[in-house]
Amino acid sequence: MKRTEIKDLFLFPSQFDSQEITVCGWAKSIRDHKTTAFIHLTDGSCHSPLQVVFTSELQNYADVASQNVGAAFIVKGTFKLTPDAKQPFEVEASEITIEGSSSPDYPLQKKHHSLEFLRTIPHLRTRTNTLSATFRVRSVTAYAIHKFFNEHGFVYAHTPIITTSDCEGAGEMFRVTTLDPVKPPLTESGDPDYSKDFFGKPTSLTVSGQLEAEVMALTFGKVYTFGPTFRAEQSFTARHASEFWMIEPEIAFAELQDDMDLARDMIKFVLQYVMEQCPQEMAFFNDMYDKELIQRINSVIESDFAKVTYTEAIEILEKVKDKFQYPVFWGADLQTEHERYLTEQVFKKPLFVINYPKELKAFYMRLNDDGKTVAAMDLLVPAVGEIIGGSQREERADVLEQRIRECGLNVEDYEWYLDLRRFGGTHHAGFGLGFERLIMYMTSMANIRDVIPFPRTPNNALL
Amino acid sequence: MKRTEIKDLFLFPSQFDSQEITVCGWAKSIRDHKTTAFIHLTDGSCHSPLQVVFTSELQNYADVASQNVGAAFIVKGTFKLTPDAKQPFEVEASEITIEGSSSPDYPLQKKHHSLEFLRTIPHLRTRTNTLSATFRVRSVTAYAIHKFFNEHGFVYAHTPIITTSDCEGAGEMFRVTTLDPVKPPLTESGDPDYSKDFFGKPTSLTVSGQLEAEVMALTFGKVYTFGPTFRAEQSFTARHASEFWMIEPEIAFAELQDDMDLARDMIKFVLQYVMEQCPQEMAFFNDMYDKELIQRINSVIESDFAKVTYTEAIEILEKVKDKFQYPVFWGADLQTEHERYLTEQVFKKPLFVINYPKELKAFYMRLNDDGKTVAAMDLLVPAVGEIIGGSQREERADVLEQRIRECGLNVEDYEWYLDLRRFGGTHHAGFGLGFERLIMYMTSMANIRDVIPFPRTPNNALL
Repeated sequence: MKRTEIKDLFLFPSQFDSQEITVCGWAKSIRDHKTTAFIHLTDGSCHSPLQVVFTSELQNYADVASQNVGAAFIVKGTFKLTPDAKQPFEVEASEITIEGSSSPDYPLQKKHHSLEFLRTIPHLRTRTNTLSATFRVRSVTAYAIHKFFNEHGFVYAHTPIITTSDCEGAGEMFRVTTLDPVKPPLTESGDPDYSKDFFGKPTSLTVSGQLEAEVMALTFGKVYTFGPTFRAEQSFTARHASEFWMIEPEIAFAELQDDMDLARDMIKFVLQYVMEQCPQEMAFFNDMYDKELIQRINSVIESDFAKVTYTEAIEILEKVKDKFQYPVFWGADLQTEHERYLTEQVFKKPLFVINYPKELKAFYMRLNDDGKTVAAMDLLVPAVGEIIGGSQREERADVLEQRIRECGLNVEDYEWYLDLRRFGGTHHAGFGLGFERLIMYMTSMANIRDVIPFPRTPNNALL
Repeated sequence: MKRTEIKDLFLFPSQFDSQEITVCGWAKSIRDHKTTAFIHLTDGSCHSPLQVVFTSELQNYADVASQNVGAAFIVKGTFKLTPDAKQPFEVEASEITIEGSSSPDYPLQKKHHSLEFLRTIPHLRTRTNTLSATFRVRSVTAYAIHKFFNEHGFVYAHTPIITTSDCEGAGEMFRVTTLDPVKPPLTESGDPDYSKDFFGKPTSLTVSGQLEAEVMALTFGKVYTFGPTFRAEQSFTARHASEFWMIEPEIAFAELQDDMDLARDMIKFVLQYVMEQCPQEMAFFNDMYDKELIQRINSVIESDFAKVTYTEAIEILEKVKDKFQYPVFWGADLQTEHERYLTEQVFKKPLFVINYPKELKAFYMRLNDDGKTVAAMDLLVPAVGEIIGGSQREERADVLEQRIRECGLNVEDYEWYLDLRRFGGTHHAGFGLGFERLIMYMTSMANIRDVIPFPRTPNNALL
């Protein structure tokens, strides 16, 4: 069966004019006008459906016309440009095969469904306009990221999912185990006997691949991770999921400015690529969810990125501190309201905030000469706030060891990490981009549960 | 600092002739001949090192020349083509900065290290010739896979890692939990009270994304997964890891032949792409590990793929059954020795074996009209045996439900999967490719622990 995808009809309509084609897909709607009927057919290759028209000359007209929404069809017919009609073209069917029926019980009848309701049917909700557009954008964004890094000579580093390290030194982690869940073997002191667990020691799901990415960066020079990460936090916000994907590039012989340049180039490339590849989807989100979306994304693509130190940012915010719910003082973490004010009201463009107080950041960030701040950077964008967080890493073994102790961590656990500084250590830097945050930014989806096909949140793991 | 990568010197040497350049990297070796010294420098951008030559005219000559293997340098100098020398070019250094020293304790002195020893230092072994070549090939292969599917209109489906489903209905799975490891809450009947666990029910690490990929395929028509999967099996072979990456495409409106065509096209594309992008690495593996590697890969790229039914294959094997350790009869699973005999001795090319007895395969494979076999396919390649396994999926809800019962599974658990057949079900098919098996095939690495940066196997999870 030679099959034409609907995407190609929209890309090159004139090439198909008056051609006999076969299309396969699912009915978004079926309208029966007695002797003529219409199917809005989608095959998932693009956002817009194809109009199929058929008449009672079809032997199985009644059977096809009485099918339910969601049914699968194979349609043979003639492709016709329709310059005077609402839709740009249609297919006049000469033969329609019912590939798979649907039923009146199909939950996705042609009407509005709330995103909340759709979350209860993860095996079907991908078929709706909003979710299918979101996951198509998700796929294209993922490819844009791989494309950017590969074309810039980065090695894709598969860091481990099951880990015995704890990158942040603080994350709440999921335990991975095969020990008996009711009567685990215990040591003499009454602790679980992890020597009998699958890996012979306690293991968890990773919260970040950064430390292992540093191993790879000090071999390959430029690497990135792109994989799932996990937080076992009881967060019930619209922005937190228990399982999400992160992108973590890491570059050797590099300082904080190189890191910022990389983050800027990557974000611009990805946004531009998605705007080019997903025009139907982006127009849909702009129409249905946020009328300023496309304008905002284009402005990031075209804009310079500003830079301000944390200390300067605090000075700016202190002048208008009555505007904010959260307090502003040197040493306080920036909240989303502060971040948005800076990027939207003050700088009116994407903004790097650099050199945060060391107390606010992780142990591995490079201590600045002032002894108080670290070479960290957060990238803030309008409408969202922070979208990327990164830093130069501490390359001095003695300073790093000191910071590990200060943070109350066990130096022994980090001997391998210190080795990276003892044997040919270099200046190096990296950042983390939460993939779902980026998809939310690009689609205007307000809830992270709607940008992950099968989201995992506390008390929720369907399928 | 404007920095030149060593990869570019190898790609476009004449462009750099007599140019002043800066290169950064790590010493693979340092040879001090009193007034002249040589560094073999690698920056990880390619397999081959760059020869750096420097003389005692350098102010810090003694300091640089006495550095240990593994030290990091920033080298400024003149790039010189050396057509009469062993290496094609070198850099005559005018300035060398010691970016980071190494030490005589550095485990990777310039000598041969066994792969077994290297596995004990996962944070350093990536720096060796063999492991760095392997992980560079791994990265390029991953990109080739994304490139193939994206250029063919597939949607990249992020299926869940933490799951409440068990795709195979039989896999040994890792439990994911936040319950107290010593005194878990129990129900009245003495079972763990999973309602108090993080997700409110038992959860595991996925063994396959296929069932969720089917959800996506019946929306987008063509999808693929590429993510980590897990098996909690006590397998101590060189071919099994507890954490590995899988590629699982799934296509709607497709039958078994479409599935085989896709597998063939994908494999050919990926092999060709890696041969083009990694000539230094492939030559290295061919020289050091398997003199027939490149010839074998080129033969797969250029070859037709053969096809045989399982029943025919058994007939062929029965004629020479004395050759084999494992018995041959209709109903027996094909072992690697059988697979290799078929592809290497009989067909002398890549070979699809199709239509296996249903008892050998999973419940979701489509039952053939003979009632005895299912529309499965395994792709066998010389030197390895099976590299891909796939099938057409059972699209008939009633037959599928019957198969679920026959396999002793609980129909209730698969209601959502049956829904995919009740609401616009279509013929569809897919396959699974073990990513590490593919990397082993392309690099000749015999142990899966050496193609995963941070491998996880029973009793082993470093970092």
